[in-house]
Amino acid sequence: MSFPERPVTFLTDFGYSDEFAGVVRAVITRVNPELTVVDLTHGIEPGDVRRGALSLAASVPFASPSVHLAVVDPGVGTGRRAVALAAGEHFLVGPDNGLLWLAGERLGGIGEAVEISASPYRLTPIHKTFHGRDVFGPVAAHLASGVPLSEVGDPIAVETLTRLDLPRPRLEGELLVGHVLGADRFGNLSLNIDGELIARSFLSTGRRVAAETGGPVVTEIVFGTTFGDVEEGEPVLLPDSSGSLALAVNQGDAAARFDLGPDDEISLTPLV
Amino acid sequence: MSFPERPVTFLTDFGYSDEFAGVVRAVITRVNPELTVVDLTHGIEPGDVRRGALSLAASVPFASPSVHLAVVDPGVGTGRRAVALAAGEHFLVGPDNGLLWLAGERLGGIGEAVEISASPYRLTPIHKTFHGRDVFGPVAAHLASGVPLSEVGDPIAVETLTRLDLPRPRLEGELLVGHVLGADRFGNLSLNIDGELIARSFLSTGRRVAAETGGPVVTEIVFGTTFGDVEEGEPVLLPDSSGSLALAVNQGDAAARFDLGPDDEISLTPLV
Amino acid sequence: MSFPERPVTFLTDFGYSDEFAGVVRAVITRVNPELTVVDLTHGIEPGDVRRGALSLAASVPFASPSVHLAVVDPGVGTGRRAVALAAGEHFLVGPDNGLLWLAGERLGGIGEAVEISASPYRLTPIHKTFHGRDVFGPVAAHLASGVPLSEVGDPIAVETLTRLDLPRPRLEGELLVGHVLGADRFGNLSLNIDGELIARSFLSTGRRVAAETGGPVVTEIVFGTTFGDVEEGEPVLLPDSSGSLALAVNQGDAAARFDLGPDDEISLTPLV
Repeated sequence: MSFPERPVTFLTDFGYSDEFAGVVRAVITRVNPELTVVDLTHGIEPGDVRRGALSLAASVPFASPSVHLAVVDPGVGTGRRAVALAAGEHFLVGPDNGLLWLAGERLGGIGEAVEISASPYRLTPIHKTFHGRDVFGPVAAHLASGVPLSEVGDPIAVETLTRLDLPRPRLEGELLVGHVLGADRFGNLSLNIDGELIARSFLSTGRRVAAETGGPVVTEIVFGTTFGDVEEGEPVLLPDSSGSLALAVNQGDAAARFDLGPDDEISLTPLV
Repeated sequence: MSFPERPVTFLTDFGYSDEFAGVVRAVITRVNPELTVVDLTHGIEPGDVRRGALSLAASVPFASPSVHLAVVDPGVGTGRRAVALAAGEHFLVGPDNGLLWLAGERLGGIGEAVEISASPYRLTPIHKTFHGRDVFGPVAAHLASGVPLSEVGDPIAVETLTRLDLPRPRLEGELLVGHVLGADRFGNLSLNIDGELIARSFLSTGRRVAAETGGPVVTEIVFGTTFGDVEEGEPVLLPDSSGSLALAVNQGDAAARFDLGPDDEISLTPLV
Repeated sequence: MSFPERPVTFLTDFGYSDEFAGVVRAVITRVNPELTVVDLTHGIEPGDVRRGALSLAASVPFASPSVHLAVVDPGVGTGRRAVALAAGEHFLVGPDNGLLWLAGERLGGIGEAVEISASPYRLTPIHKTFHGRDVFGPVAAHLASGVPLSEVGDPIAVETLTRLDLPRPRLEGELLVGHVLGADRFGNLSLNIDGELIARSFLSTGRRVAAETGGPVVTEIVFGTTFGDVEEGEPVLLPDSSGSLALAVNQGDAAARFDLGPDDEISLTPLV
């Protein structure tokens, strides 16, 4: 067996109380014991495709050329397609439900796509409820071992791939309206305002912001670069580790403090 | 150091908030840095030997010849034996409390057994409360590195091994009575009705089932092949990823919906 | 690329629901795909430096010479230093907030220290909120690959490193006063009474102990060597897997039973 071409990164909503992620890992190791597997997370909320897509997209720019195996698949066993994609020097493997789309964009765009439901590299018999083990895992392992994309499935048009439906931010003069994408373990809220939009907005020059989050109360928030830019317990807007805007509380939990969740709107204007 | 013969799979109830599983992993790496370790899960409920046994048995058929290290060990430090077993081309290492039995059966039956409490490969001094680190881990690592079973412990009779006590299903004409073995992260209930019993029962020809779960209400359930065979929120009986019968709710949580847990009985009859 | 010199152990408070630990792992693999990474735990409570320090210190004696990467870093992005340390044949990498101190002591004491905030091996641009990915991970990976400590940062005096502030036990004749350091997944309480102090106290000869935990009730507890030394549901004092004193309940949860948490005092005297 030759040395592996690429690591396999692995992200799912399988959780940690069952053996599901481990069995897929065992299947990958059976295909090629030399492969390195990097568990990104298996703690995505069950069926939360958007959260999975965001986590995957935040991870892929930091990996060497890899096969990114991702399974958040509420439609397993139905008509949804199973796909393997090429994006730059990377591959993506998972269900065609939008999970892989953002990561593909982050890697420079998806260049090629194949449908793998009937891949010659799947396990047989297939169980309709566990494509992670029976289809996605073995296909990812073979791609990582050097099998060409064209051999693991049948070509499909990139334009037909399912995209992820995300809320859109808007910039209207000095009004910047964004939405919550999710909260991390520490309660930091990620917003759909990326580094490029920050640069075009009043935030590029202002440090004091008025934030409206639906209720009658307007909060004054500092736009800083790190949690410590404000006192403990105070809120702060800052670029997160992907360069996008986040709303945090120094040593605290912004999600709880502002009672905000996915898709909630937040309006920002400059304070003078 | 020669290349490893086998991967080590690793399943425990150690959880993820302490360093316990990680320390065992460090000990394995110290014995042989070339070994591949596949974490199956460390999220078994504390002391739940049955759940550990079922997860392990569901995993081993998908692994290449491996050493399966499993530690769910409420009796650690008492008189229970510590064992290493051969089953087909695989080895199993853990406490003799029934945890390894089902997996051994699934691998074709246990052919040989040794007691390893005083193994020459254990760490010294032994701490009576952490045999995973001090006995099971190092013995598994040495087996995986090619040390023969006969050298890691003293032979014991396979017939003396502790078996797992599971409820037994029964088939009485068109009545099929099973029991809940457990629920997974998604709320899907696994039943003790395996593929062979499904094939012998009315389920092999019928698609509509009346299910009784203790109360006065009889539920009509479709016997299908995947979640999507029913509308969202509807229950479905289907073969799970091991081929055994499961009770699920499409996009929902069957364990919560039916208020069922381990050992609860479910009676199935055909609907015409 | 030469073969790796050392494994990397990895401990954080990043949790399992986000991709944070996985991204750091991906960065390590990008630096050197041959490195073995041993996840100790990522389940330390957010910002709980003491618990992280205790888990790390309990782990390092069982690892072969390694790079121990640990990130529990509530002060990320503020003035706290980022450091890499040499202790015996091991290295430690993380924030200078006391997290690494105990482990260094356990490895024989810290011999050399460098500040790595501006390490030539960090990723650029640095994000102020994710030094695990941008500073600690890549520096650990390079150390593990054989880069000398002197090349990853600028020397600082070992005496200036932040130490961990722990409660101190006291032995006054036949009175032994300790404190709770923490509870593990099983509810076992670890105390700040190490093996050496046990040996010097009345516990070295006595088996029956009167324990006071703040309230008016004095509990009689056996000092044993394993959980099974008492009946199910009964409390027991015993040396834990590090040799320090622990308070446990056989098959039960001592933390819940005694309502004890970090820093709570426990006074032990002999019963005749």
